[in-house]
Amino acid sequence: MGSALTIPLSDRGHEVRLWFTEFDVGILREVSERKPHPRLGIRLPEGVKLYPPEKLEEAVSGADYVVVAVSSRGVLPVSRKLRGLLDSRVPVVVVAKGVEVVEGRPRTMTDIVEEYAGSKSVVYVSGPSLAAELARRVPTFVVYSSRDLGTALKVKQAFETEYYRIEVSDDVLGAELSAALKNVYAIAFGIVRGLCKADSCRNLEASVLSYALAEIAKVIEACGGKRETAYSLSGVGDLYVTAMGGRNSAFGALVGGGLSPREALEEMRKRGVGVVEGYLNAPTLASLLSERGVGRDVAPLFYAVYDVLYEGAEPTIIVNTLTARA
Amino acid sequence: MGSALTIPLSDRGHEVRLWFTEFDVGILREVSERKPHPRLGIRLPEGVKLYPPEKLEEAVSGADYVVVAVSSRGVLPVSRKLRGLLDSRVPVVVVAKGVEVVEGRPRTMTDIVEEYAGSKSVVYVSGPSLAAELARRVPTFVVYSSRDLGTALKVKQAFETEYYRIEVSDDVLGAELSAALKNVYAIAFGIVRGLCKADSCRNLEASVLSYALAEIAKVIEACGGKRETAYSLSGVGDLYVTAMGGRNSAFGALVGGGLSPREALEEMRKRGVGVVEGYLNAPTLASLLSERGVGRDVAPLFYAVYDVLYEGAEPTIIVNTLTARA
Repeated sequence: MGSALTIPLSDRGHEVRLWFTEFDVGILREVSERKPHPRLGIRLPEGVKLYPPEKLEEAVSGADYVVVAVSSRGVLPVSRKLRGLLDSRVPVVVVAKGVEVVEGRPRTMTDIVEEYAGSKSVVYVSGPSLAAELARRVPTFVVYSSRDLGTALKVKQAFETEYYRIEVSDDVLGAELSAALKNVYAIAFGIVRGLCKADSCRNLEASVLSYALAEIAKVIEACGGKRETAYSLSGVGDLYVTAMGGRNSAFGALVGGGLSPREALEEMRKRGVGVVEGYLNAPTLASLLSERGVGRDVAPLFYAVYDVLYEGAEPTIIVNTLTARA
Repeated sequence: MGSALTIPLSDRGHEVRLWFTEFDVGILREVSERKPHPRLGIRLPEGVKLYPPEKLEEAVSGADYVVVAVSSRGVLPVSRKLRGLLDSRVPVVVVAKGVEVVEGRPRTMTDIVEEYAGSKSVVYVSGPSLAAELARRVPTFVVYSSRDLGTALKVKQAFETEYYRIEVSDDVLGAELSAALKNVYAIAFGIVRGLCKADSCRNLEASVLSYALAEIAKVIEACGGKRETAYSLSGVGDLYVTAMGGRNSAFGALVGGGLSPREALEEMRKRGVGVVEGYLNAPTLASLLSERGVGRDVAPLFYAVYDVLYEGAEPTIIVNTLTARA
């Protein structure tokens, strides 16, 4: 997504600097030779300046905006590296999604950036935005959230293009929870697809999405965010793209089809997919929910997925959980 | 859907009588010969008694429950035929979806049944329920709505099975509006699919669904129903199945791909699809919204679809409408 964002930002006339972590040096090599970006399938704009892992300081020096678009695991180390390199008022736009346990406590992405990078102007990006589509300028609608709406508006005004449209919100927690939870519910969606013995089970798929959405709303509210965020681009919008096309639902379909979670992960690796975010994030999310007092009564579908992935429960408990709700 | 419901009702041990309108005599002939139901692909349960068009009185005589599962156009003539045949306290379960103009006024399905059949116990069925899936006992979750929740609960207790799960609600108007509007928004979904020049436009599809849902919620609220109904099985659940697989989105895709609405209807007819509900219902819905004072400010996406279908507007206005909203 970091690379994809260079397209609208270049179209807006910004000087764009793209820094690569040590995990991305293969991509850096390709794009340095002006080859298409291997994940996006397009060439990056000519003006984009490329920075190798050791040149972070140079990359962010004098920047008006910083975008953090690494994996959820990468947010802590990158935040630590950024500390002291930025004025705390420079907006830091966080694209990473998930919950990470840091020093024994579950933390959201913006929590980590605020505490470890020392930023006071964090903006969180959510909504349905497959990077490869944005890179092709397919119209993409997202939400920029910040506790200070003025900061979100400022970044919106700097980043928005005709095809990259930005809504603003002050519900950062709701956006973060939606973004992390949707991966877990996409696994539930995949599981019912995998379980389906008829030609199609659209009725059941729709019910999973519908109950997932209701649960996201309840979890957000129980944690102190706004229910409405679940019903926006951040919630239902992102849930749709993730359920339709992502690795989480593909992984779920393998589990619903009869593989154990371990076998399904192995199969995903064979297909060249290293990380299934919903699988990784189910335990950290469970720990966040537990810390906030959100239990099985509020989020039975979430915990049903957790039980299938980590407690050896049968995939059919997903359907049973819906049946018990109705 | 009427035929599909004979499966759970027979499984519950009810005596089931299936009456056919004059438009269904072809189907009646097939199922009378114990052939599979041509629309559902399965044989009806042995115990189901079949009634031809002229035997409505016999079919409903002594019935504990009546299910009206005709097209929206058929609800008025069938209601008139039912008048006087039923005790007004016998629950009438209405599966038809849409808005019809009767004597110059836009009326919902339950309005028509109440006024013209003289029923005082109407229950409205909504939610994601493709008939062919229910007929195969694919788990299906629906909502039965009634102004008197007790009536909805009574029918739920009589109709529910392990695979046909029924929630109850008292928001009849919200359920009716969701059910009718979703066909129009599914056309918008199809149009953006048809317009898509990239490999996929999932980001944009997700945004259409997300904005459609927000609009359904606002329309329901403006008409006096409950926002939450939009976010339930009745709203988001049904919107999903309709956008994914229905004739409305297929029709929209043809329009987005460059055919005029008239040409697209002709093409649908060639494919054997007679009725595109969203096309038929856009004007009656527009007249209902207008009567309730719901204008373009509340429902810009609905009116954009209307303008494409009836006012010669370009399909690209669908995308422009979303862009203007963000």
